[in-house]
Amino acid sequence: MSVTAPAGFAAAGVTAGLKKSGGLDLAIVSNLGPLANAATVFTSNRCKANPIIWSQQVMRDGRVSAIVLNSGGANCYTGTIGFQTTHATAEAVADQLQVSAGDVLVCSTGLIGEQLDLGKLTAGVLDAGLALRDTAASSSADAGLAAAQAIMTTDTRPKQATRVSPAGWTIGGMAKGAGMLAPGLATMLVVITTDAVLTSAQLDAALREATRVTFDRLDSDGCMSTNDTVSLLASGASGVDADPAEFAAALTELCRDLTLQLQGDAEGASHDVAITVRNSASETEAVTVARAVSRSNLFKAAIYGNDPNWGRVLAAVGTIPEADAAFDPYGIDVAINGIQVCTAGEPDQPRELVDLAPRAVSVVIDLHAGTAGATIWTNDLTHDYVEENSAYSS
Amino acid sequence: MSVTAPAGFAAAGVTAGLKKSGGLDLAIVSNLGPLANAATVFTSNRCKANPIIWSQQVMRDGRVSAIVLNSGGANCYTGTIGFQTTHATAEAVADQLQVSAGDVLVCSTGLIGEQLDLGKLTAGVLDAGLALRDTAASSSADAGLAAAQAIMTTDTRPKQATRVSPAGWTIGGMAKGAGMLAPGLATMLVVITTDAVLTSAQLDAALREATRVTFDRLDSDGCMSTNDTVSLLASGASGVDADPAEFAAALTELCRDLTLQLQGDAEGASHDVAITVRNSASETEAVTVARAVSRSNLFKAAIYGNDPNWGRVLAAVGTIPEADAAFDPYGIDVAINGIQVCTAGEPDQPRELVDLAPRAVSVVIDLHAGTAGATIWTNDLTHDYVEENSAYSS
Repeated sequence: MSVTAPAGFAAAGVTAGLKKSGGLDLAIVSNLGPLANAATVFTSNRCKANPIIWSQQVMRDGRVSAIVLNSGGANCYTGTIGFQTTHATAEAVADQLQVSAGDVLVCSTGLIGEQLDLGKLTAGVLDAGLALRDTAASSSADAGLAAAQAIMTTDTRPKQATRVSPAGWTIGGMAKGAGMLAPGLATMLVVITTDAVLTSAQLDAALREATRVTFDRLDSDGCMSTNDTVSLLASGASGVDADPAEFAAALTELCRDLTLQLQGDAEGASHDVAITVRNSASETEAVTVARAVSRSNLFKAAIYGNDPNWGRVLAAVGTIPEADAAFDPYGIDVAINGIQVCTAGEPDQPRELVDLAPRAVSVVIDLHAGTAGATIWTNDLTHDYVEENSAYSS
Repeated sequence: MSVTAPAGFAAAGVTAGLKKSGGLDLAIVSNLGPLANAATVFTSNRCKANPIIWSQQVMRDGRVSAIVLNSGGANCYTGTIGFQTTHATAEAVADQLQVSAGDVLVCSTGLIGEQLDLGKLTAGVLDAGLALRDTAASSSADAGLAAAQAIMTTDTRPKQATRVSPAGWTIGGMAKGAGMLAPGLATMLVVITTDAVLTSAQLDAALREATRVTFDRLDSDGCMSTNDTVSLLASGASGVDADPAEFAAALTELCRDLTLQLQGDAEGASHDVAITVRNSASETEAVTVARAVSRSNLFKAAIYGNDPNWGRVLAAVGTIPEADAAFDPYGIDVAINGIQVCTAGEPDQPRELVDLAPRAVSVVIDLHAGTAGATIWTNDLTHDYVEENSAYSS
């Protein structure tokens, strides 16, 4: 169950013929109301795709009736023609759903720099509109699944999650993204729906905090996308005024669920690595240090080789200037999969005790500089990653 | 010809048995005078190896009589025992050469976190001392070559360079480093010798400027070593007062020569990529932008696949915050191997025109934001890189 789990939402996933490989490539999620509140977080990359530029405009009044997502092309760096394609797509959706084009978010994912086929897009929107007019079918779990499949690119499986509150509201979500995962989001498209009653401002606060500690801490290969979008739509159809704090907690949990699914399907990865920094002077410093390790190709290649190479962990930690993280370089402990291989900057337990065969890897770095901490999720650097990203143009 | 090209220097390269693979693994370069002036630039990594800590102390008076370098172990994160090993090595060299241990630089390269065998080190120093007592042989080109070979780890060939001034002085140099190449130097060991007459302060100024625009701009895989050292030793044996500006220019040229040799032998690389940013608001901004591209795994994997993926170039450029580089994201041109594939943020020449078969790759990014510029050298991300760094513990 996913985006159609909460009341007041319909979804469709169709084949528009945009993806070379064929298969579902266009999705619409429609908010049937009574509310049309929303919050969206966009990529912080300054080189933004056309759909991002459009959607930022849509978000100015915090009102969204529908979101359309296509794979088969990012519509990024496609100039004025590309922007017109985005606009026309929103218009076509608005026409099908009898809503305003200015309330339709657009997301695209795929290759950068190539024009999308507007004819195929429009035909796909027509097909999706038809499916959405079957109210029962389009609010089913199958419809939500079809939408989740239609947004996939290099993903090997759709990612969905649901959280149900005893208070009587539900949150559902779908995500795609399996490469280019980095801070400031990733080449991720995430749509989250809820039937809770909340204002756009409340949705925005909850979404930013949830994103900050989940998607923003997934750093598979250090690259940041041009197209990231995480949208949260509220129909209010449950009639239940959600407690903002309870909602925020449930939303964060759902986002963490999706984040770990994305990590588990990262391109070509053979390990899921959680890098936890403990006892830092601040949470920000913990994130800075953990991220530096998560971006070390030498560290990630070592994990791929099942090598508990703590020296490379420290070499990455040491690149952080003093102003950005406080620590004594010779006072750091490093534990890998529960074995403390380095204590206060000296070798401790034998490396041979570390078992890196399981997919899940835990690295814990104790800075002994405070009481804060944070975790960054990443993956190893593998032959498959190189193969997929040298052969696949995206 | 290399470190023995200038007058007043002797060198030796011997087998101490430190490297598991066997082969030359310990080198000494001895400054015979009359001057014992020197300058050294160290890694900016806060997690510094024991030999770095020792050598920083040696450099406090700007006086160096000899430098000893070993491969087979970085002597990093080896605690008090490791520091005692470094100290004892310097003492052994001092004893052989009849100089002060406080004038002996020590460099080590290899695995982090493992103790060096002091017995083998000392025996190796004795052998090198013996070789150095044969004055003619130890000042020959062969001796310089042996030293250059003894400092190799994953290098496939020794790196040497010489520059001869019409004014009558000479500079020679040797380098090692084929992974972990990044800003703030790299896992590089570089020894440069000269028979010019210059003060330590003049040497220091020349070396810092040369390093800033050469070694600091080599960024093969984004990782920064714990052990980098670039040393410049002056014997003054030519008797010629070098013009500081002429010397600085020749030194920079020699460092660039060594830098390109290091790039050409980067671990597992199949392309040498020069990323040039033009028309930036400042040189620093050009470096920041070029470095971001040089660290994009997606960009580097694409180059490996002979894919002129300018979208990934822009996605990397776009990660730079406005405060760190000024540019209009939709006003950037990108040219790859002479073909302008993107103009003002839109597709231009067809990608099919770009020939990425040759090893040398040029990416030129025009920011249209000023008149400054800079180049960062990097390599592609290949299967061999992953293989070497998952199988080889270092």
